[in-house]
This record gives sequence, structure tokens and C-alpha cells, in this order.
Amino acid sequence: MKSDITEYNFPQDLKSMSLAEAELLSYSIRDFLIREVSKTGGHLASNLGVVELTIALHRVFDSPEDKIIWDVGHQAYVHKILTGRAKDFSLLRQLGGISGFPKSKESIHDAYDTGHSSVSISAAAGMAAARDIKGEKYEVVAVIGDGSLTGGMAYEGLNNIGDSKSKVIVILNDNGMSISANTGGISKHLGNLRTSKGYLDVKRFIKKRVSTIPSIGKALVNGLADFKNDIKYSILDDGGVLFEELGFTYFGPVEGHNIRELTDVLQKAKSLEEPVLVHVITKKGKGYKNAEKAPDKFHGIGPFDPTTGAELNKQEGRSFSSLMGEFITEKAETDNRITAITAAMCDATGLKNFSLKYPERFFDVGIAEEHAVSFAAGLAKSGMKPVVCIYSSFLQRAYDQIMEDVCMQELPVIFAIDRAGCVGADGETHHGMFDLSYLSTMPGMTVLAPKDGNQLRDAFDYALGLNGPVAIRYPRGTTRYDKNITSDFKGKNMRLIEPVDLDIWACGKMADTGLKTVQLLKEKGIHAGLVDVMTVKPLDLSPLNDLNRLPELVVTIEDNTIEGGFGMHMSACLGGMPVETLNFAWPDSFVSHGTFDQLAEIHGLTPEKIAERICEYFEK
Amino acid sequence: MKSDITEYNFPQDLKSMSLAEAELLSYSIRDFLIREVSKTGGHLASNLGVVELTIALHRVFDSPEDKIIWDVGHQAYVHKILTGRAKDFSLLRQLGGISGFPKSKESIHDAYDTGHSSVSISAAAGMAAARDIKGEKYEVVAVIGDGSLTGGMAYEGLNNIGDSKSKVIVILNDNGMSISANTGGISKHLGNLRTSKGYLDVKRFIKKRVSTIPSIGKALVNGLADFKNDIKYSILDDGGVLFEELGFTYFGPVEGHNIRELTDVLQKAKSLEEPVLVHVITKKGKGYKNAEKAPDKFHGIGPFDPTTGAELNKQEGRSFSSLMGEFITEKAETDNRITAITAAMCDATGLKNFSLKYPERFFDVGIAEEHAVSFAAGLAKSGMKPVVCIYSSFLQRAYDQIMEDVCMQELPVIFAIDRAGCVGADGETHHGMFDLSYLSTMPGMTVLAPKDGNQLRDAFDYALGLNGPVAIRYPRGTTRYDKNITSDFKGKNMRLIEPVDLDIWACGKMADTGLKTVQLLKEKGIHAGLVDVMTVKPLDLSPLNDLNRLPELVVTIEDNTIEGGFGMHMSACLGGMPVETLNFAWPDSFVSHGTFDQLAEIHGLTPEKIAERICEYFEK
Repeated sequence: MKSDITEYNFPQDLKSMSLAEAELLSYSIRDFLIREVSKTGGHLASNLGVVELTIALHRVFDSPEDKIIWDVGHQAYVHKILTGRAKDFSLLRQLGGISGFPKSKESIHDAYDTGHSSVSISAAAGMAAARDIKGEKYEVVAVIGDGSLTGGMAYEGLNNIGDSKSKVIVILNDNGMSISANTGGISKHLGNLRTSKGYLDVKRFIKKRVSTIPSIGKALVNGLADFKNDIKYSILDDGGVLFEELGFTYFGPVEGHNIRELTDVLQKAKSLEEPVLVHVITKKGKGYKNAEKAPDKFHGIGPFDPTTGAELNKQEGRSFSSLMGEFITEKAETDNRITAITAAMCDATGLKNFSLKYPERFFDVGIAEEHAVSFAAGLAKSGMKPVVCIYSSFLQRAYDQIMEDVCMQELPVIFAIDRAGCVGADGETHHGMFDLSYLSTMPGMTVLAPKDGNQLRDAFDYALGLNGPVAIRYPRGTTRYDKNITSDFKGKNMRLIEPVDLDIWACGKMADTGLKTVQLLKEKGIHAGLVDVMTVKPLDLSPLNDLNRLPELVVTIEDNTIEGGFGMHMSACLGGMPVETLNFAWPDSFVSHGTFDQLAEIHGLTPEKIAERICEYFEK
Repeated sequence: MKSDITEYNFPQDLKSMSLAEAELLSYSIRDFLIREVSKTGGHLASNLGVVELTIALHRVFDSPEDKIIWDVGHQAYVHKILTGRAKDFSLLRQLGGISGFPKSKESIHDAYDTGHSSVSISAAAGMAAARDIKGEKYEVVAVIGDGSLTGGMAYEGLNNIGDSKSKVIVILNDNGMSISANTGGISKHLGNLRTSKGYLDVKRFIKKRVSTIPSIGKALVNGLADFKNDIKYSILDDGGVLFEELGFTYFGPVEGHNIRELTDVLQKAKSLEEPVLVHVITKKGKGYKNAEKAPDKFHGIGPFDPTTGAELNKQEGRSFSSLMGEFITEKAETDNRITAITAAMCDATGLKNFSLKYPERFFDVGIAEEHAVSFAAGLAKSGMKPVVCIYSSFLQRAYDQIMEDVCMQELPVIFAIDRAGCVGADGETHHGMFDLSYLSTMPGMTVLAPKDGNQLRDAFDYALGLNGPVAIRYPRGTTRYDKNITSDFKGKNMRLIEPVDLDIWACGKMADTGLKTVQLLKEKGIHAGLVDVMTVKPLDLSPLNDLNRLPELVVTIEDNTIEGGFGMHMSACLGGMPVETLNFAWPDSFVSHGTFDQLAEIHGLTPEKIAERICEYFEK
């Protein structure tokens, strides 16, 4: 054994290790994970849960020839360690450092880039189909959590692989949780598989009898009371009747922290020429008491004290998420039509208190954004006021349902869109940089972008008063909120400063950037107006139309892609008017991980960069 | 019995009918359907399949108090007849007439508007939750085909209802087809349920034994050979183990053309206080030989001769769909990386020949657009050149997968987007009017809009040469194609006419409209240039930039929504230039059913209307 895991030559060194060495290695990896992630922050609990599984995978399979696809991908840290990237963990999720998710560009061992849930089985199906067409020989392995299995797309993938009989190995990493605890019939099914007592014994017993005795007779009598359940989980080949029905050979459940057992079952799976599902039971946060006790908290966490588990440098102030949850809970007291829906993000979207106070009006539908939206449409159609709380990036999954179910039926569904805009360390798969664009294309949708807690409250109040779909998008992080400050928001954009040379229209959280830009320009003798853009659709141009004299330049600033965003709408609206426009937004390319400030600097979205470009304009 | 079904007062009259009268009625309805749909065109086969089921539903349930939700909704004609709309069928799918899909605005009996697949269960879950919160009492019934059950969203819905234990009745209308024959493990599961012999007998037999005899002993011996299968489909409460695992009580299979049996089972389902799934076996096209023989053809059909089944007034020329299929097949001969994927639309997207010629490179994944796209991404990641053939409106389902899987990994997946723009009679749920907008927001995506068969071929050739995602969107219907005409398309937009007073940029199929507009304007002494816009992204402005003198007006014409579309991009690009713009596109509202010409007239997209507005501009 080496004293430092960065000294190994992985994955090769893994193959020659004895079982005992591999078991020791699992301790080193856990130590390393806790130490490194406590410094950088990241997804800890899920990675602690797959240490042995990942070791076993890389002992049995030969990456990169064999393809391992990590569903969602936040649990790929151990895989990164075991494919030569331990040395890079000091820059995990930092600008220029390794990503918290698999990236083909980072390593040949990252077979497929993931970030959103339930994709791995479909991707694996495609890769296996390509392999079969070419007549090549290698294994394709999808590792998917039980949480991701609540997403319908996973089922579409299983359904198709089962039918095609193409060789794919699906590893079901079952820890009984997504980010919150799981819900749904499928979870109960897995729960039954996990807890069905004597499962292996009964199976052997039945098999023996069926093959050797002419009558199974009295053999079954003793178990009569539990007859039906036993039969479901025992007589069938390997217990996973649901997966077997879909065409998979099921192995499991297997103890997910036992490298020997894992190795055995993976070898067996590898030896077959048919779709196989291996059901592995793991514990989220395994081996680190703080995380075992609070896997939610340690799912994604900032830097923390490894001894106490206490989070360090927590931001001051209230988060947008917790405020949103508070506003929904407050309004629900007097309006019993208010219901809240989350897709496996109860805590993270601030709904914990609501869920405890109004359990009958709270719905966690699992990682099933499509269902969440049509479910909300059903609620609204029957007179409720549903609030759908989903991260911007994940709401992309429900584009069609927002369009066809909610907008087309003009239903009063409120979308509380968390983590809109740049999200920082989670990077390109998680930035919510497209919502202003795709929501603006939807007929009848009102799109609001509050800049702080007070505007968030005002937006929600206003949305409750409308009888149609409303999207309220707000960023990750904390904000100011003073409950004593009230406004009378009626969907209008607000002029903060009168323009002389130019007018700055700053959308949502970028209002602060706008204000700083105005101040920087003032130092240069350029006098900018400022409009606080909270209503993106329908676009309210009255602060411009109300002016006696148009400025020669209008500048837009938004925390969204340039393509189809607020600025582009504004530019198109101003076409033909004697006004030039400059749009500041994220570029038409995918933005990497890094802090907001770092990324804003790179992409010209800081007050300094914006002021600089405006000065250039006036110098020309 | 009345001689004309328009004379009944439905649904009330249905309740008082004898069983014999109801059975007679089923004949009248079939006659009526065949006669009426032969005149207007429409979805025939699926409606012929649900005559008895719909009669039974309206005898057992009390619409509109009880809510019946029709998945996809194209099978709701009988429901429309039985809720007072028989008299409106002469205008079925015609402008101003009744829709081919459920519409709440049309009737209080249409509980939820559908059009896209696999939504009904989620919507029903929402409506049932609202009912339970309010403490109201009524039934919520979702009628879903086995085809729609291949969509993951249906599974998300089942998973959640099964968990919540909320009372929802799901009617699985199993005809063994979506539009084409079904694929997937779930279909096989249903097939097993359908064909498992002696299922009801065995069930009764086992139940009796288990309840009355201390030892089930020899009772099972005789069936030993089929032991495992019998046990799966027999011993469990009602056979539908997959549905039972998800938390549903399963009834079935039930003969779907027997009103008495259907009535019995629906009554039984109604009497329970738990989620129930009723598995009904129907025959698509039932009772009309031409449709029974060719359910595909009679799925959606134009006006036809009811005696022969021959389609009338078929458009001259080749369809875009069949040409696309031909081009893919041709290229596949020399490029074995080419694979084709369809989501249950093999025929309709022109892939029939490809599927026969290259079965190993053809994938029908069922109604599972999300899986289709990530599956294609997996293929591309492993070196294939997948072509994903999906209707524009349905591709909305895969917005997130196109973004995250294909664009983010810069994979060479070609999207052959059929039925883009206005589709005519199918109306608002089926128009493909948003694709230019949502695809343009995606980093790295190339978006092409060929106007005819030759450009379609050129676009595909060009796409095959690119090493990144390409979307080729083309309209429903026929087009001209001359294989002898070749071009050298390299992603540039093409100037057809030099401008004097204004320049018209016409996108895709609207090039014809643009040309006619130029001619109309010429008669008025206004000289317009014309650019044929085939490349929407990256937008190629060279035909404008190459001019020595800019015209004062640029006009854009597109078969897409105004919001975020080609015109808006063009306007934004021209901001600050001494050019005014006028954008002609579909409005920011949902466009109803009607012919393209009728709808273009209403929304100002005919050459005459466009020329008129341009003249107004020059008169001002």
C-alpha cells in the first residue's frame, strides 16, 4: 500500500491489488474524500456511498475500453480518483480545475457527460447499440441511483434495452434516497426487495424442489400466510420481478460495501450475454458519521469542518429558496388552494416547513419534472393554485408540459424557478441560463425576475393574483429581505435613475450590477439611467416610452444566455427606433464551473467590464 | 332507438338505455364515424376501437362531475358524440369547427386538453389530489393506450399514484399498437397478459384452494412445466404484476368490445377506494374492414372513399417525410455509421424502407422522445451518425436532452424535424411553431430550414459533413424535388433577387410566399429583394452585408412563432443599423386548427397580407 493515493497508477494498480489491499484502499479513499471535499465543498454523501462499488467496477471492468456511465454524475468522485485524477482534487469544482461531474474532455475514462438525472440507461443503450452494429466487444455499464429511477426516462431506457436484448449492465445503486428520501411505487418495490427476509434461501429451496420432486406439495404449506409476497420475491428467477418483466436478468440485492461480493456479482453479470440489472444496496454517507446522520446536508455541501461537520463560511442573509418557501407557507395559511410540488428537492427549494405544516397540500413526486408539471396542471384545472418549485436547469425537462398542459390551457400554475442563471461550482449542466429564453417563447406565460427577497415576495403576490401561468426565476444564494418594506408591484418595470447619455435595463439580480455600472460611468462623466427589470414577459417598455427624450444607447444586462433572452427581445422591440443597443448576457456557448464573479469577469458581465465597453462605445 | 344519433340527448339518454340498445348504438356510432370521417378526414382507427369502451364509460360514470381524461386525445371522437357533439362532426378539424382533440373550451365534458402522449395519468393524479384536498367526491378516469404507456411520463404518473393511494382509475386501452406496432419490454409484458392462457380459470382455482384447503398440495402439480409463468400471471391478485408492484389494483384483461363486461369491470373499479388499473383489450379499426386491415393508414387519414378505403384528393408530389427517408436510406448505403431513430413514427417519418433495408441500424424506441435523443447521443458518442426523426411538436419533449446530451457534448446527431410550422387540421397541440426558437437558444446547434426536396437533400448532405448537432426542420406535406438539380450548399443563405426599396428574408417553406410577395409589390411599383433563408443558426447575414447600399426596410417571413424566432434574431442583429424591420411570423398565442392557407390569412402570413402591410409602411 502506498501512503498517498495520488501515488498510485490507477486504474492499472487496482487490478493487481489483493482483496485485502482493495479493502484498505477504501479507507484511504474515504479519508481523502472527506479531507478534500471539506476544503472545496462538493457532493460528499453520494460518493462515500459508492467507494466499494467503484473499486469493484474498476477491478472487474477495463476502462476506458469498457464504458462506465454515471447517472447524474455527482457520484463520480471515486471514479475520478481511480482514473488518475486524485492529484486534481484541490481544484475540484474551481475555475480551471476538475468538474464535479464526468467530462469526456477531462478524461478518456469519462465515457459520457452527465449532470441531469435518469439519462445513463438511454446513453448506455445507444453506446451498446453502436458496439453491436460495429461488431465490437466491450461492456457498457450504467450506474444509476434509485432516486434517478423515479424519472420516467430511466424506464424508457429499461423498456428499450429489455426489448432489444442488447447487452447492457445496469447497476442500481440503491441507497433509498435521491437527495431527499424517495417516494413512489418503485421505491416501495425496491424497499420490498431490500427487506424481503430469507430471500436467497427460499429461492434455493424452491429451485431444488422444482427440479427434483414430482410434487412441490407440502413444501409450500408452511409459508402460506406470506405466500403471495414470498412468491413475488422468491420464486421468480432472482426476485426483481419488475425488472424481469421489462426484460432484464436481475441480480440482487447485493451488499454494496463488500468488495468481494460486488466483484463476484459483477463478474457474473459480465459473463452473460443479455441485459442485466445488478441491485446494490449502499448507504449514503457511508463511513463518515456526520454524513450518515445527515445525508441530505452532505449531498451537496460547501467547505466544512471535517471533525464537526459544521459548514464553514456560510453566506450571511436568507437564501432565495428559504424565502420562497416561507412566502408559500404564509400564503397557504389563508389560501387553501395553494399547493406545493417539488421534484425530489424538498429541502433545497425551501419547502421543508411547508411540507410539515401542510402535508396534504405538499407533493414530492420524485425526480419526475414532467409529471410534476402536468400534475400541477391537473391541480390547477381543478381549482387549486399549485406552486411548482424546481431548479431552472431541471425544469428544462418539462418544456413540453409547460407549453402544452399549462400555457395552452391557460392554467394558473406558478413556477418558482430556483437556481436561475449562473449557479457557480456545479457548472455547465446546472447553470439555469436558458429559462428566460425558453419561457418567453410560451404564449400566455408571465416571466418575472425578482432581484431580492422583497421583489420575490412581490412577484409571488402578483402571481397569485393572476389567472394564468407565471414563472418566477431567482438565483442561487442569499439576498436581502426586509418584511417591513412593501411595494405595490403590478407587473411594471421600474425606473430607478433618469438617463442622459444612455439607459441601462438590468434584469433580476443584475440590478446590482447595473447600479454599480451607473456609478462607474458617472466617474467617467457618462450619465446612465437605470431601469429595474422584474417583468421580462410581457415586456414592459413604459420606462422608456415615458421619457421625453430617448437616450442614444440602451444597454441590457441579464443573468441568461444572449440567445432569445431579455436583451434580444428588447433589441428587437427597439428596432427601427433611433436607439442603439448593447446586450450583456452569457454567451451562446456552455459556461464552465467557477464562481459567479470569476465567470462574470471572463464573460464581460462585471460592472467594470460593462462600463468599459460602454465607454468604448462613447469613444468611437 | 332513434334513426339519427344526433337526435339523442347524450350523455343522459345513455343511462336509460338497455344493454341491447347500447349494443345497437355501437353500430350506429361506427356507421356515423366512418361516414363523417370519410368526408373530413381525421383519426379513425383509434376511435373505431373505443366505441364500446366509451359507451360503457359514459354509462358507468357521470360526466362532467366525473372527469374522463383521454390520453393523446385523438380517440375522443366517440366521447364527443356521446357528449352532444355529433351534430358538429361535419366541421370536424375544420376552421371554426370542433377540434380533433379534447378541448375544455368546446365542452364541459372535456375535462383536460390533451394532444401529446402519456400525460393523462399525471393530469388525473393532479385532479384527484385536488378532489381529495377539497373533500369532494367524484371519479377521475384516465384512458391511456398501450402505446402511450411506452412514454416514461406515464410511468412517473403511475409511480406517484401508486404511492399516494389516491383513487384514480386508469383504463389501459390495449390494442397492441401506438401508431405503428409497439416495441419495448412493457409491450411484451402486456402481450403476455393478453395471451396467458387459462388465466382467469387458474386464478379462481388458486383462490378457492388457498381459502379452503390447508395444503395447496397436488393442486399445482399439473401445471409444473409452466409453473413460473403461470405463477406470474395467475397467483398474484389479478395478474398485472408490474402494475401491482407500482401500487395499483389490476383488473383484466377485459374484452374491450363487450359492453356488459366493460360495464361490470368499470362498476367494480368505481366501487373501490384505491388506485385501479383496468386492462382492456381492443382492436384498432374494429368493425371497419379497411381499417382493421391497415390500422396504420387509418390512424390519421384524409378524406377517403368509405367503400374502398382509398384516400381522396391525395396531394401530388413527394412528401418531405418520404424524401427524408429516401435520403437517409441512400446515404446509409455508403456510410455505415448512419442510424435512424424514430419515436413510434416509422411510417409517418418516411423510415419504412430504411427499417426494412437496415433493420440493425433502425431503432423505433416507442413514444419516448427523451430516450430517443439520449440514445442517439450514445450512438454518436460511439462513432455513429444518428438521424433522429421526430415531429417538431413532439420533439419539445426532449428539449433538455438535446441541450444537455447532444449540444453540451457537441455530438453529431442530426435531427430530422418533420411537421415543423403550421400542420393544419390537428391544430394547436400539433403545430411545430416553436422549434426555430427553442433550437436557436442551444449552443453549437446548426438550424436549417429547407424549402423543398432539393434543399432538404442539400441540408442533409451538409449536416452529414458537420461534426456537431444539426437540426433540419421541414413542413408537413408535399414538395417538388428534382434529383438532377444539384447545389453546393455550404450553410450560406442565398440571394435570389437584388433589393431596391426593401429586402425580404424568407425562411424555409415561406420562400414561396416571399417570391409571391415580391411579385405583388412589383405591381405596386415597390422593388423588393429576396433572400432564401435556409440557415437560421448560425445566422448568415452575408446577403445583406454584401450589398453596396442597405435598403431602408428588411422584412422577415417564417413559419414559426414570432417569439425568439428567426425574425427576432434578425431584428436584434440589425439593431443600430439604419434599417427598419418588419417580422411576419405566427403570433405569440396558440394557433387553432384550420388549413395552412386559412390560418395564414387570419394571421397575416399570405403574400397579399404581407404585401399590404409593406405598402402601408411605404405610404406612411
